[in-house]
Amino acid sequence: MEKKYFPFTEDAAAGIATLGEIKIIERIRAAFEKISPPAPRGIGDDCAVLPAVPENFPAQTAGTPKRLVTTDSVIFSKHFDESVSPENAGKKLIRRNVSDIAAMSGVPADAVLALVMSGDVSAAWLDRFLRGVAEACTECRVELSGGDVASAPAKHFFSATLALTGFSENPLLRTGAREGDFLYVTGTLGGSILKKHFDFRPRIDEGRFLAALPDSIVRACIDVTDGLLKDHAALLPAGTHAEFAFDSLPLSGDARTLGGNLIRRAFCDGEDYELLIAVAGTQTDFFEKTWREKFPGIRISRIAKIVSGAENPELSRRLADARAYEHFVSKESSEA
Amino acid sequence: MEKKYFPFTEDAAAGIATLGEIKIIERIRAAFEKISPPAPRGIGDDCAVLPAVPENFPAQTAGTPKRLVTTDSVIFSKHFDESVSPENAGKKLIRRNVSDIAAMSGVPADAVLALVMSGDVSAAWLDRFLRGVAEACTECRVELSGGDVASAPAKHFFSATLALTGFSENPLLRTGAREGDFLYVTGTLGGSILKKHFDFRPRIDEGRFLAALPDSIVRACIDVTDGLLKDHAALLPAGTHAEFAFDSLPLSGDARTLGGNLIRRAFCDGEDYELLIAVAGTQTDFFEKTWREKFPGIRISRIAKIVSGAENPELSRRLADARAYEHFVSKESSEA
Repeated sequence: MEKKYFPFTEDAAAGIATLGEIKIIERIRAAFEKISPPAPRGIGDDCAVLPAVPENFPAQTAGTPKRLVTTDSVIFSKHFDESVSPENAGKKLIRRNVSDIAAMSGVPADAVLALVMSGDVSAAWLDRFLRGVAEACTECRVELSGGDVASAPAKHFFSATLALTGFSENPLLRTGAREGDFLYVTGTLGGSILKKHFDFRPRIDEGRFLAALPDSIVRACIDVTDGLLKDHAALLPAGTHAEFAFDSLPLSGDARTLGGNLIRRAFCDGEDYELLIAVAGTQTDFFEKTWREKFPGIRISRIAKIVSGAENPELSRRLADARAYEHFVSKESSEA
Repeated sequence: MEKKYFPFTEDAAAGIATLGEIKIIERIRAAFEKISPPAPRGIGDDCAVLPAVPENFPAQTAGTPKRLVTTDSVIFSKHFDESVSPENAGKKLIRRNVSDIAAMSGVPADAVLALVMSGDVSAAWLDRFLRGVAEACTECRVELSGGDVASAPAKHFFSATLALTGFSENPLLRTGAREGDFLYVTGTLGGSILKKHFDFRPRIDEGRFLAALPDSIVRACIDVTDGLLKDHAALLPAGTHAEFAFDSLPLSGDARTLGGNLIRRAFCDGEDYELLIAVAGTQTDFFEKTWREKFPGIRISRIAKIVSGAENPELSRRLADARAYEHFVSKESSEA
């Protein structure tokens, strides 16, 4: 991976410190012209003023939908590095937040953006980052409602935090799976470090499809971000484990390119941004048939069955010393 | 100001890096037990699942209220320093966001918290910061719905970003003031660096009172954060300026203690977190009388009249070389 997108500059005239807050906000407004409506709905007042429920919310059932809120950051040298273009870093911020809304079967609606940046962030790099944010907002139909900029008392520091609101008439939770359910995963797993960790399409339409199915068919859902190992455990009821069909794991081409222990890649690389879905054991035929009709081009793999017993010695054996990515303690980043 | 609350530790065993993400999140859950309901409404799923409108929203008019969203950060050595206790730093984060909701006449409802921290943040300091967050949430009736923790690739770095949602049936905007309106300010101005920048009560009740008055009386509102100089300008219609009654500026005791150019303190110190309100010229008697009945203990001062002409030579002369606080370009912090 070529290292060419370093966000910082030694040339004071090219850094954002020269601009100052007012001009930075002007540039943000300009970059977000198409995704931020006029104030007070968009940037410019103390708060964004928004409808309690979006006007165009496609409610499939009667009643008021639930509001979904999530927050996630991208930080330079943590969630992306200089091999990732600024546009793609900006897109990653939007997409990873949207993926959380999608995993609960929601429609993303609006977001606020908080930037914390050292004065040596290159103004040109920032413009490109903002362009990526705007493009991904357009892709995912997210309105940018407001935000904040603050200077970081550090050198070479860039952090962007999004808080995203969405809506669903029937949110799919992590809880709800039962013994006898099967686990399905969309797309492919592993090797996200090569590209997919920023270049992915959040599974909004797939989540909406799941929301429309009754709870007696689709029990629970999560998006795979920390890795299948850690994330699948969040779906398991107490006293159960997942019996994996290891041959059915949908390995990505990039996982194969990277090589090594491919089972570990599928379970521990993380940042797959796929949906992991628990489906009632009696409904798998119906679920698979309906999925194929609706999404003929999107892979869905039945990878495990939830069975009794908390221990899973087979999984431990296959993974050996592997572990899922964890902030703070991990010495190696899963991404960069 | 005594410098005794340094958030970082050189003792690796006392830093959060020793804990790792999972244990940090456990501590956050424990600290927020009383302000975060069980998942999925609170911490623990991909998103928080919340009612589109809070069950207890005290609507004074028919119809669905508007949703208000704001975001703001506190960063060590920027928004607070080691003279501020960790509890007060945590309270500041909540209060400054709530102040934005109050300035639009809203009721705060729920929030998500994103922490970006270097591994050398002291676990004991973090616990106390979280306790302050929880206490201020209780004070302001804010539910903590979820959040994110990420490690900062830096030393001595602590940043906390809140995104807060509130509701108002009649949001008060910055726009709406007209020539002939008078500007009122609550409480006192200046000298916030000594204490008020973290130790203040957001003016929620006062904002609710303003929401209940018709637009023909209360035209516009903003909270004073960057300083009266910068913030009052946001209320002015094009081609007008505010003719200040300089003797009526409600100077704080701390502004007098600090001394110097007191007019500059009132206009430029910032972080007053008071409400600046535009009231129709014909309604000032009614407004003042109603205010005094409702809030006998809370000072309200008529400080200016909006008049035609964009220039304000008198103000410029009084302030001399003063300027409002601006991120990135300012060499001196307004706070620490």
